[in-house]
Amino acid sequence: MAEIYYSQEIHGPYETLNLGDFDLEDGGRIRNLTLAYATFGKLSPKKDNAILFPTWYSGTSKILELAYIGKGRALDPSRYFIILVNQIGNGLSSSPHNTPSPFNAAAFPRIQIGDDTRAQYKLVTEKFGIERLELILGGSMGAQQTYDWAVRFPRAVKRAAPIAGLAKGTPHNRLLVETFIEAIASDPAWDGGWYSHAGAVHRGLRRHARLFAAAGFTPSLFNEAGWRDLGFTTAADFVTAFVENHFLPQDPNNLLLLLSKWRDNDVSRIAGGSLEAALSGITAKLFVIAIEEDAFFPLSDIEAEQKLIPKSELKTLSSAWGHLALFGTDPAYNERIGAYLKELLAAG
Amino acid sequence: MAEIYYSQEIHGPYETLNLGDFDLEDGGRIRNLTLAYATFGKLSPKKDNAILFPTWYSGTSKILELAYIGKGRALDPSRYFIILVNQIGNGLSSSPHNTPSPFNAAAFPRIQIGDDTRAQYKLVTEKFGIERLELILGGSMGAQQTYDWAVRFPRAVKRAAPIAGLAKGTPHNRLLVETFIEAIASDPAWDGGWYSHAGAVHRGLRRHARLFAAAGFTPSLFNEAGWRDLGFTTAADFVTAFVENHFLPQDPNNLLLLLSKWRDNDVSRIAGGSLEAALSGITAKLFVIAIEEDAFFPLSDIEAEQKLIPKSELKTLSSAWGHLALFGTDPAYNERIGAYLKELLAAG
Repeated sequence: MAEIYYSQEIHGPYETLNLGDFDLEDGGRIRNLTLAYATFGKLSPKKDNAILFPTWYSGTSKILELAYIGKGRALDPSRYFIILVNQIGNGLSSSPHNTPSPFNAAAFPRIQIGDDTRAQYKLVTEKFGIERLELILGGSMGAQQTYDWAVRFPRAVKRAAPIAGLAKGTPHNRLLVETFIEAIASDPAWDGGWYSHAGAVHRGLRRHARLFAAAGFTPSLFNEAGWRDLGFTTAADFVTAFVENHFLPQDPNNLLLLLSKWRDNDVSRIAGGSLEAALSGITAKLFVIAIEEDAFFPLSDIEAEQKLIPKSELKTLSSAWGHLALFGTDPAYNERIGAYLKELLAAG
Repeated sequence: MAEIYYSQEIHGPYETLNLGDFDLEDGGRIRNLTLAYATFGKLSPKKDNAILFPTWYSGTSKILELAYIGKGRALDPSRYFIILVNQIGNGLSSSPHNTPSPFNAAAFPRIQIGDDTRAQYKLVTEKFGIERLELILGGSMGAQQTYDWAVRFPRAVKRAAPIAGLAKGTPHNRLLVETFIEAIASDPAWDGGWYSHAGAVHRGLRRHARLFAAAGFTPSLFNEAGWRDLGFTTAADFVTAFVENHFLPQDPNNLLLLLSKWRDNDVSRIAGGSLEAALSGITAKLFVIAIEEDAFFPLSDIEAEQKLIPKSELKTLSSAWGHLALFGTDPAYNERIGAYLKELLAAG
């Protein structure tokens, strides 16, 4: 199923860029690191209309496109050149399931957010010759990549919008991500990553999906049947048809790689271990956007980081869809996030 | 380990009452149903100073005693006759692990909250001859029993204080409890309930404990290291030494029985399926107490029920310990809950 899911038919059209040998923060190396990306709109002659939008956990460029891009929206291809880049391990870029032996599956090297942003920097600067992004934005793990870009490449980022994510994982967030990891890895069929086929681990993927649903949406979404607008029949039907269905075709090792990257995220490594030094060195204009009901990345944690960033504003919005409002299922969220992004893009 | 844990040495002293054959709401029968309970103080000649306090999930009478009872506190044995009663399945009262074959372990019948309250009613009225409780209170699953008492036996309840719990489980709460169930039952060593010994299921119990910790406390407790006051060294040390350590000596089938009872809780069954009818029929004076940060039983869900209860007041308190402030680890919670209970006990 993973081969069918991670395909041009389902998630395309997308391009790929082979970056050759790529040395990793944790000491490993990916041979023929491939980034999959999709672009929308045209790069201006001055190359001053580029937006970069990396994926979140289990997301793809196609999922971002459907939820955020369109004429008249903030990310308008008639005005901007938008690059949707798939993070390493998401199944379209280099990932455990599509890497040849001996670095396949459980032998795929450990990845950090900084590996993604360094690879994306090559895509942006070497492939497209863009020196400065008008905007980088991302939700959840995409926010982690957004923060890493703003800290690591200050001259290449004019504006940034990290949405529902943190620059440095909190102890609680790490515990939460550990529970997601355990839900998959505890399935005996996972077998240390050497399962016969991805579908064999469906029990673990289903458990993982239910944990994700229980904390990713808000209690009120379930209790007020907010899923009715999308055509589901019961809370259980919604969880299976929407959340389990999202994860079941994906590769367990891919998801586990993404989860370990999510868990270990910490921009302070770029600044000798000081989060204050890392965030105070950001020169971009930032809208730090938080979902008030977010149980993955609580508002108070996001606000604590925002206060350390010089040219930043905290922007909040409310959604019964909680953290997973990112997916674009809530019209009110879509409208509000669009307004924030337009405001940021108009800021000098 | 379960035999050592569920003992007079660890959780005593407690008494037991054998209720003989006891028919269950779901159609089963417990032979020689035994309720374990502990009493404090003296029953007045008029029998008008009795307080009943049933246990929460994985709690025992000893845990309640240590957290809530003492001279000068709201539950003062020099003034009140306090009965701490262990719910069915908690390991001290009749439970899967202490019931002889053929109804042992996975063959123990399914239990509902109403089975507990009907058995407790016999303890209160037949054993002690008490016609009316001055107060019934309980936290979490204890709140479920408190609501059931108030609906089922209105003339036997003068005052009630359900704390951090609901009269009818919400769809979200059921999903959450399902994830706890799955964390244990997914351990291959659980083997449908027919494990060789309770310790064999420790991986499932540890996963369950970590899920419990991630949602049971607040993010800020972890992120601000609120566990330091209790002498733990890191977030991981706290989770293992406090939460895993709490659950590991307990019997997996006992915990699963309690979880299914928690999940299915619904007082509306007493009133033909109408929650409004059930709650509007309560005649006791109620303080409905909610913990503002509670992720198991959100304030908004508790408030929605409270509004349906005639002589009730909503009382809220705040704790970084979230739902698990019930355990008495937060001095501010202890002080506030004590003040609320004193106020309720003084109300006419």
